Amino acid sequence: MKIRMKEMKAIQDYYPEELSYCYGCGRLNKFGHHIKSYWNGEQTIAHFTPEPYHIAVPGYVYGGLIASLIDCHGTGTAALASYRNENREPDTLPPFRFVTASLCVDYFKPTPLGVELELVGNVIEIKGKKVISEITVSANGVVTAKGKVIAIQIPENFGL
Amino acid sequence: MKIRMKEMKAIQDYYPEELSYCYGCGRLNKFGHHIKSYWNGEQTIAHFTPEPYHIAVPGYVYGGLIASLIDCHGTGTAALASYRNENREPDTLPPFRFVTASLCVDYFKPTPLGVELELVGNVIEIKGKKVISEITVSANGVVTAKGKVIAIQIPENFGL
Repeated sequence: MKIRMKEMKAIQDYYPEELSYCYGCGRLNKFGHHIKSYWNGEQTIAHFTPEPYHIAVPGYVYGGLIASLIDCHGTGTAALASYRNENREPDTLPPFRFVTASLCVDYFKPTPLGVELELVGNVIEIKGKKVISEITVSANGVVTAKGKVIAIQIPENFGL
Repeated sequence: MKIRMKEMKAIQDYYPEELSYCYGCGRLNKFGHHIKSYWNGEQTIAHFTPEPYHIAVPGYVYGGLIASLIDCHGTGTAALASYRNENREPDTLPPFRFVTASLCVDYFKPTPLGVELELVGNVIEIKGKKVISEITVSANGVVTAKGKVIAIQIPENFGL
């Protein structure tokens, strides 16, 4: 699975250049996390190994990082789902790119540092410009956190 | 206000050394954000200026960072509120230290990069080992995001 993924392009690799500087998932942000989201059957998937300094209390991952991973895999899942919903490939125009309207994370148990985390996304709803997804975070095969992301297609007047 | 705060100790400055490595607010994490939370009357307050690379889309702050700031100011607010609730100073024992059970953030509008953000916390409920707070994030005096943090006192069996 991993080897195949490295050969594949993630949805973030298709984002337009000017929208590829996100600290969480922008391929052009030198300091960022470079989260990459893929389809895995009907679910989406991403992996990330926290750095030793991404610590909360000794031995465990910082909750803000977990929220960040869920956030970006949620907007990535929204983009993946939107192309599939239109039977379009992600290199076709117009591009789908989302921002987060709402992010909720429940932390079930401490997430151990030092292992690769797996994020799995399920698309709950696609309605107009809104995509809702649920994202689980697992370490060593155990789900430690679960998030819900409401993503909105970037409006033309964003930031105006 | 700012000058007075710099002379004051933040709640995070009282955390026990072994619990002071949090990426968001640990004073001993070399790479972290060093969020510092204070009382401001009946509210709590913290300030943070994002780095240029904490970008979402050009000109605006990454939502994962905003969630991270809310997370740490929420647990800091929980600790502040717990000491005040017991009429204790934060340098008295036993120390209060919290982890996040749940974090929800609504993003109302894009948060501009390049300015200092202000986080204001209101304590909603203190019940047993649980403290619920609401945190607003403002830039240039405009609220751009609002979060709710359910913080739980670190259990003795945390991570076991």
